Amino acid sequence: MSVSMDCLFRPTSVAVVGASRTPGKVGYELLKNLIDGGFEGPIYPVNPSADDVLGLACYDKLEEVDPLPDLVVIAVPARFVPDVVDTCAELRIKAAVIVSAGFKEVGDAGAALEQRLTQTADHHDLRLLGPNCLGLMVPDAKLNASFAAKLPAHGHIAYISQSGALLTAILDVGAANQVGFSHLVSIGNKADVDELDLIRALGRDDNVKVIAGYLESINDGNAFVREADQISRHKPILLIKSGATEAGAAAASSHTGSMVGSEQVYESAFDRAGVIRCESVKQQFDLAQAFASQPLPPGERVAVVTNAGGAGIMAADAIERIGLTFAKLQDETKAALSEALPPAANVHNPIDVLGDALADRYRKATELALADANVDAVLVLLTPQAMTQGVETAEALVDVCRQSPGKPVFTAFMGAEHVAEANRVLRAGGLPVYDGPHTAVTALKAMADHARWRKRPQRVVKLFPVNRHRTELIIDRHLRRGQREIGEMEAKEVLEAYGFATPRGGTATTADQAVGLADQLGYPVVMKVWSPDISHKSDVGGVRVGLENAREVADAFDLMMYRIPAKAPGADILGVMVQQQCMTGMEVILGMKRDPRFGPLMMFGMGGIFVEVLKDVSFYLAPLTNDEARQMLKATRTYKMLTGARGSEGVDLDALAEALQRLSQLVTEFPQIQEMDINPFMIGPAGTTPIAVDARISVEE
Amino acid sequence: MSVSMDCLFRPTSVAVVGASRTPGKVGYELLKNLIDGGFEGPIYPVNPSADDVLGLACYDKLEEVDPLPDLVVIAVPARFVPDVVDTCAELRIKAAVIVSAGFKEVGDAGAALEQRLTQTADHHDLRLLGPNCLGLMVPDAKLNASFAAKLPAHGHIAYISQSGALLTAILDVGAANQVGFSHLVSIGNKADVDELDLIRALGRDDNVKVIAGYLESINDGNAFVREADQISRHKPILLIKSGATEAGAAAASSHTGSMVGSEQVYESAFDRAGVIRCESVKQQFDLAQAFASQPLPPGERVAVVTNAGGAGIMAADAIERIGLTFAKLQDETKAALSEALPPAANVHNPIDVLGDALADRYRKATELALADANVDAVLVLLTPQAMTQGVETAEALVDVCRQSPGKPVFTAFMGAEHVAEANRVLRAGGLPVYDGPHTAVTALKAMADHARWRKRPQRVVKLFPVNRHRTELIIDRHLRRGQREIGEMEAKEVLEAYGFATPRGGTATTADQAVGLADQLGYPVVMKVWSPDISHKSDVGGVRVGLENAREVADAFDLMMYRIPAKAPGADILGVMVQQQCMTGMEVILGMKRDPRFGPLMMFGMGGIFVEVLKDVSFYLAPLTNDEARQMLKATRTYKMLTGARGSEGVDLDALAEALQRLSQLVTEFPQIQEMDINPFMIGPAGTTPIAVDARISVEE
Repeated sequence: MSVSMDCLFRPTSVAVVGASRTPGKVGYELLKNLIDGGFEGPIYPVNPSADDVLGLACYDKLEEVDPLPDLVVIAVPARFVPDVVDTCAELRIKAAVIVSAGFKEVGDAGAALEQRLTQTADHHDLRLLGPNCLGLMVPDAKLNASFAAKLPAHGHIAYISQSGALLTAILDVGAANQVGFSHLVSIGNKADVDELDLIRALGRDDNVKVIAGYLESINDGNAFVREADQISRHKPILLIKSGATEAGAAAASSHTGSMVGSEQVYESAFDRAGVIRCESVKQQFDLAQAFASQPLPPGERVAVVTNAGGAGIMAADAIERIGLTFAKLQDETKAALSEALPPAANVHNPIDVLGDALADRYRKATELALADANVDAVLVLLTPQAMTQGVETAEALVDVCRQSPGKPVFTAFMGAEHVAEANRVLRAGGLPVYDGPHTAVTALKAMADHARWRKRPQRVVKLFPVNRHRTELIIDRHLRRGQREIGEMEAKEVLEAYGFATPRGGTATTADQAVGLADQLGYPVVMKVWSPDISHKSDVGGVRVGLENAREVADAFDLMMYRIPAKAPGADILGVMVQQQCMTGMEVILGMKRDPRFGPLMMFGMGGIFVEVLKDVSFYLAPLTNDEARQMLKATRTYKMLTGARGSEGVDLDALAEALQRLSQLVTEFPQIQEMDINPFMIGPAGTTPIAVDARISVEE
Repeated sequence: MSVSMDCLFRPTSVAVVGASRTPGKVGYELLKNLIDGGFEGPIYPVNPSADDVLGLACYDKLEEVDPLPDLVVIAVPARFVPDVVDTCAELRIKAAVIVSAGFKEVGDAGAALEQRLTQTADHHDLRLLGPNCLGLMVPDAKLNASFAAKLPAHGHIAYISQSGALLTAILDVGAANQVGFSHLVSIGNKADVDELDLIRALGRDDNVKVIAGYLESINDGNAFVREADQISRHKPILLIKSGATEAGAAAASSHTGSMVGSEQVYESAFDRAGVIRCESVKQQFDLAQAFASQPLPPGERVAVVTNAGGAGIMAADAIERIGLTFAKLQDETKAALSEALPPAANVHNPIDVLGDALADRYRKATELALADANVDAVLVLLTPQAMTQGVETAEALVDVCRQSPGKPVFTAFMGAEHVAEANRVLRAGGLPVYDGPHTAVTALKAMADHARWRKRPQRVVKLFPVNRHRTELIIDRHLRRGQREIGEMEAKEVLEAYGFATPRGGTATTADQAVGLADQLGYPVVMKVWSPDISHKSDVGGVRVGLENAREVADAFDLMMYRIPAKAPGADILGVMVQQQCMTGMEVILGMKRDPRFGPLMMFGMGGIFVEVLKDVSFYLAPLTNDEARQMLKATRTYKMLTGARGSEGVDLDALAEALQRLSQLVTEFPQIQEMDINPFMIGPAGTTPIAVDARISVEE
């Protein structure tokens, strides 16, 4: 496969099937772009009705091209494409780009055509990009196999786009901002090559420093997460993922299910894999230039150098607001700054070099800030005053950065024409350029977050000793009977098999039995109706809590037997469950919903009113490590309640994290489980046993 | 005063005191800018050591200028400035701009000099801008009384800046984006003319459509809010307020006090006055161009027209995420679109006119979208494809907008060089231009919010009949005795005087009395220690709740008398308070903290854990209208709990809003009250009486 991707990205020769002599036609523009791009290998136009195109001798058929090309670009009408692709396969050609439209995007007939392409690719060592795409560009290889525009400058940002139209805008913005690209790939319909193949190939390419992209969907979520996780460790991936408003699944059967949309799943997957999500092309460029040119900051403490007090204050505000730390300079640094700057200058952070600062003051202040052990990153602001030396300052900063390569430097020279040349110097010197403190700080925050992601502990998923067999029996029995919901009693058996404690209790079929059980358990007790047909027990009056004595238990039993048949006609009522009432601890909810693309998504939240009103829950993809389980707890707004707010003792966080990991193991080992809730899960202080009070599981083949 | 501001903004003649013959000097650059700007009235340089400057005859002294100038620009060293200003006053000159630095910003000596300027201005009909400022520009009057840069294009945006350096960047960005200005004012140290004077004058100027500014502080908060509120009704005010990290007041004595920072106060003041807060200069320009050129949207429903599916999806995401509504097109619109566009086009929102769309398709689609009664605003996206007619499309859109002036149209032509000319056409035609869907939607949201602000009901502050006299007695007594804290008992008396119900109960000095009281009230009761010296009663074990019978009451009394003296040595313990225990309703907190600039800031929050862990509170400036009190309730994240979550009955929202208004009346009528809490305030369903269970008030002369 790697060879095929090489043929796609770095072919030694290219054939264009459907080359045309008519300017404006795709087959003409493509060939012209290939030639104009300066591709150095042979280019073979293929078109039976022409002798030559754009000065190149034309072939009647692909078979006649000799030696065979590495890459075939196909621009014939959709209905002819499958035959051309079959020919490619027969000739053992390794890669083809199909720019032709008229496939899946136009309906069923097109989808059938596209299906043929996928099948051919699947059965041969042939990789297809497209159809319905703009093609691809590799500036370094002087390869412009697209009908988009002329080749951009060579650089280290690879861009893949599921929207061809967006690529043209991206090229244009890139050119205006001196952004160079290593690759530009229009993915099209993804009949064969998809985002996963591309990030895998780009991840291995040393010429690529940043992978950026625009995606509307991800085909194989699990594989994507695995691959992206590996790549993100050494190469940042910046994605715009649009289509957040995708319609959710029909009706959710669990609480967790009702809280999960595709948005949460993508967020969790990106979090897990270290993928940095961008909201707009502008922001993506802002981040890409930082990641492509600057080292990750060792921490979150930012120093600001400015020639305008107001800009410095704005930067300080932005730093605080976004959650970075405003650096406190060391005394030695302040002393050295006092030495180097005029008396009126501010030697505290933000370092104000004053409105009349020339390049030397900027150089000195930036050097000193970078040398300070309390500083992890420096933001240099400049407003163009009468005497300001924009270009010289830019040159000085480029120089300073070369000499102190360990910490990132960001610049925001504010203005337009007055700072344009200086900005060009900064960019050419590898310094990221922003239009103000706000955008610079946003980019810096993304880098700091990514640095933290890279430093996270090694992922080790702990495996707990469990009773898989018992779980398997219960699930299989339900599936055989066509029961999708596993009721409370058996759901708790499953949980017990995975090491959860559940309330003591039992079932009773008469009032006397119920009283006997309650006497054994000790009061107060909880009573619930026992019926395989009733899953929302409280809706039918099938839950009573706080029963204090034998009379209350007997009354509750008889009332349920009398009233529930009317409320749930036809339900098979087997009796009641009598359980000890859990009085201590905090109610939380643990849950899971399986996503068709990304697998089981775990949920944690504070129970009761918090989950219902505040939707205060956190998500993460299973399987969970201990660290990830702890992160899920911390990600809720009410985390403080777990650690002990209002002077009360905190809960046993280790036990809670372990419960999440055990649940994660259960849903990972049993893909039949589609959704489940443990709600409430009662968690008390360290030393007490947490209890899974109620649970619900839905299964599917 | 209006005459003086006229002399500042539209003088018929200008003198420059400190005019210099040396290029680079402020006195030279100023005069040169005045001349180069094309000022049409006489310009008088004043400098005793020169005969002429820049070809103009020079005066020795200001007194010699005849006729006297309307405006004097002062550029002499700081130590000479007060004398020049005195001369201006004696000559009855109406306005002066002091660009000289060396005043408050350099320390005490400078502050003393500045004080003299303020005094002179206060005692004469003379308005001073500055000192330590760049000056001002009024392009329409060809007045460039600054040493900043050359005059920008004339337009309808007025900009005032407390940072001179920022103004130069703003001028530069403005020029690059074809933004015209009506005024540019560098405020400097605000010795006399401040932001309030300026917004007042600019508010009255019909030439100004938008007031924008950068402020670090606001001098008179109350007056600012009053004035800004009036102006915002017809002219938007867009401000960057920096310096959010201002240090708070020392130690707060109330719960409310501890939650209020200067940030909340400014947020509330801006909310109240309809001022639109911006985070960056870029965002401010993005909003200013929209407000200056487009009508406010009648509602929040946005239609999108695009030639690229991906861009349309990004816009849809952005619209949803920011809280606008994605418009549902009427059937007639869809039918007309089907008629007008090719079959492959998408006639649902986002309307996809396809990649090969020329100007006519854009014209038709935008016209139809604007005509749809379900659409309040239209966002037009364009990516530059090979055949795209950028400029013609821009012209078509300008034309469409002229013909349908009632709804705003926003554009985001994505790219750089390929769309530059089209963007120029759009801007020249009065259409706001954005770099992508995200920024366009952000601006649109600001407009929709502002439109809603303008439609808010007339502010009517209800006055409740209260017992002011009783309150006055209590407050005066505390102030006379130097007691800053009003304890629970008397705080409740104050509340009762303002129509609040407090728990029934009384005081007891013996255990028997306490039991007698409890018997009368009915069990359970609450007992609290009664001491003027103990304000944190629970810290010393001075609060017991849920006392169920006479024995428990007697025991609790004796235990308090035995234990508290050891915990609070020296405290004067008068006995206990015995109160009915409020069992029903929800705990909320009502509070106020007085801000030195903006006056009383009201706070509302859900009580207990919600306010402590979630900090789920809302703020608004007193005095409150009923509508504003309701808005405060809605602004909390837990509002749903008030309306009845989990099937429970909601609380009496009218009573809660009334309580906030009564509290607002109390703190407005008694400026001695610095901070206060009613915590908890128990509010039940309609028909029950809400109870102020505990309260604390701090007063000051």
